[in-house]
Amino acid sequence: VPLTTPSSAASAGAPATVGGFGERELIGRITARLPPPPPWLVVGVGDDAAVVEPERNRLDVMTVDAIVEGIHFDRRFTPPGAIGHRALAVNASDLAAMGAAPRLALLSMVLPPALPIDDFDGVVEGFVAAATQYGLHVIGGNLARSPGALILDVTVTGTAKRRQVMTRAGARPGDEVWVSGAVGSANAGLRALRADEAASAGTCAARFLHPEPRVRLGTLLARNRAASACMDLSDGLAEGVRQLGEASGVGIAIDGASIPIEPDAHAWFTAQGQDVLTEAIAGGDDYELLFTVRPRLKGRLEQALRHGGVPLTRIGVCTTEHAFVVRDAGGGESPLPQGFRHFR
Amino acid sequence: VPLTTPSSAASAGAPATVGGFGERELIGRITARLPPPPPWLVVGVGDDAAVVEPERNRLDVMTVDAIVEGIHFDRRFTPPGAIGHRALAVNASDLAAMGAAPRLALLSMVLPPALPIDDFDGVVEGFVAAATQYGLHVIGGNLARSPGALILDVTVTGTAKRRQVMTRAGARPGDEVWVSGAVGSANAGLRALRADEAASAGTCAARFLHPEPRVRLGTLLARNRAASACMDLSDGLAEGVRQLGEASGVGIAIDGASIPIEPDAHAWFTAQGQDVLTEAIAGGDDYELLFTVRPRLKGRLEQALRHGGVPLTRIGVCTTEHAFVVRDAGGGESPLPQGFRHFR
Repeated sequence: VPLTTPSSAASAGAPATVGGFGERELIGRITARLPPPPPWLVVGVGDDAAVVEPERNRLDVMTVDAIVEGIHFDRRFTPPGAIGHRALAVNASDLAAMGAAPRLALLSMVLPPALPIDDFDGVVEGFVAAATQYGLHVIGGNLARSPGALILDVTVTGTAKRRQVMTRAGARPGDEVWVSGAVGSANAGLRALRADEAASAGTCAARFLHPEPRVRLGTLLARNRAASACMDLSDGLAEGVRQLGEASGVGIAIDGASIPIEPDAHAWFTAQGQDVLTEAIAGGDDYELLFTVRPRLKGRLEQALRHGGVPLTRIGVCTTEHAFVVRDAGGGESPLPQGFRHFR
Repeated sequence: VPLTTPSSAASAGAPATVGGFGERELIGRITARLPPPPPWLVVGVGDDAAVVEPERNRLDVMTVDAIVEGIHFDRRFTPPGAIGHRALAVNASDLAAMGAAPRLALLSMVLPPALPIDDFDGVVEGFVAAATQYGLHVIGGNLARSPGALILDVTVTGTAKRRQVMTRAGARPGDEVWVSGAVGSANAGLRALRADEAASAGTCAARFLHPEPRVRLGTLLARNRAASACMDLSDGLAEGVRQLGEASGVGIAIDGASIPIEPDAHAWFTAQGQDVLTEAIAGGDDYELLFTVRPRLKGRLEQALRHGGVPLTRIGVCTTEHAFVVRDAGGGESPLPQGFRHFR
């Protein structure tokens, strides 16, 4: 498929926009950026649908997630490549949370005609680079015109052995609660970017713009059957604790002092005069994994960690009381703060 | 999950809108409308991803298609149920075109907070009813807020035996070109609706609002291996002929007098003083199947038809000349009109 600039756009003098290109030209600009197709792809881009060979003796894990301009990203401070990266990363994170090995992605773009074609290319490049990084092959998608916002809606599938699938529903009272990496940087980074003071939050802005889903950790936990329940922290730690507890039918008591908070986020919230713990656990967009471990099966976690490389922290315990609380150093308890909500 | 009206919306006095509900309440309104889960659904709605058992000895066929308010539908004259129906139907049509047996759907909705909750329910009901009609089970999806338009982005999968998959690329010179049903009604219906004169186009408005993908015909053609190539007519007959011919590396000569044009559309275009053939084949949104048949394997088509019930019409032939032409009754040839284009 030729990657030519059509005469309508070239003659205008202004930067070329998506609206000056035909659908097939835009598809060609995507396929030209894809790596060679994998052997299991029987029919790829260009027909009414893609056809793939399923993997033997494994289950399919499927999820879809959209990022919407003005809601999930702001084009004023989000480079095109970061938009594409995020659209893929938030989905790869859902696969990681289930313990699935990434397989394929479908990219559905809703495009404002005024989008510069260079930005379109940048979004696609960020998306394809992230897909390659996390082991997902882009096998198809859809392009539609948008009357307003730029939207990327992405479907991904992975595979997992039946006994290795991790859900949110497997935790029991007494199970330890663990979290990967550190939290708080996405919230601090986003707010610093919005205030046009990205540098004030150190590495947080970069972390917000370029989330790194824990794909390898998720598959390691699953393969070693180290976690009794698992989910990702796209809606923040507080909301995650609540959702995992509710799905499993347990309460959860978090040890406030143990929460791993990104040092740059800690410093930024402190400088803003805000409650560090609340801000770090109530904000969304940290793509860490929250999971539970049966104390007697802790050897499996150590097994998984040996190949990991991601810091993990024990932050609490599952309880029989159906309550979500934060314990302070003095032994006192306070209710878990509300987390990130999409609609209200 | 409770389907209660939250106090914030109820107390306002105005009709409740999507923005007054939490994400989990909205998901609950969807799941409450779903039929019981199929046995192959291992993990359904409510976790980070859905988990399904693949079908043995079959390939997976996957496609995604979005419908966007202001581009693909107009809320002024499209009832909520018809919006939901369309979102599912356009995807089921892509499965039909590949000869796949429908399996599952993921529903991703981008919702303006001002959308009345009754309209939300209506969209979901239209979607679920269409899914049930065409044999697709809704296993998951995503909800996101929209800063503007209502968007439904739908991923569906089906399954097919390897040797039964129909692509656009299998036609050879000499193959006959066939089309199901009749064309032109969607174009006439849409334009009559836009002019606020739906009744003037007879059944066309209803046909535009409620497209019926040829799912049964697609699977019958595939099972009997009756078609050498196949695609759907979402972009119209002219564009379909061009795309099928280009994918197969053949030219196509259409017999203009043979094109089955919906009588109400014929009458409407005539009353508007427009060229009936051009309007009927250049307009999109007819969800018929266009397919090719090897003359010596025509017995298979008759076999498929015996269980069909959809009228089929032979409209042309594949040629070695790489041209797309319409032959008139006098033996003259004219170039095929341009079809529907998404971006230009």
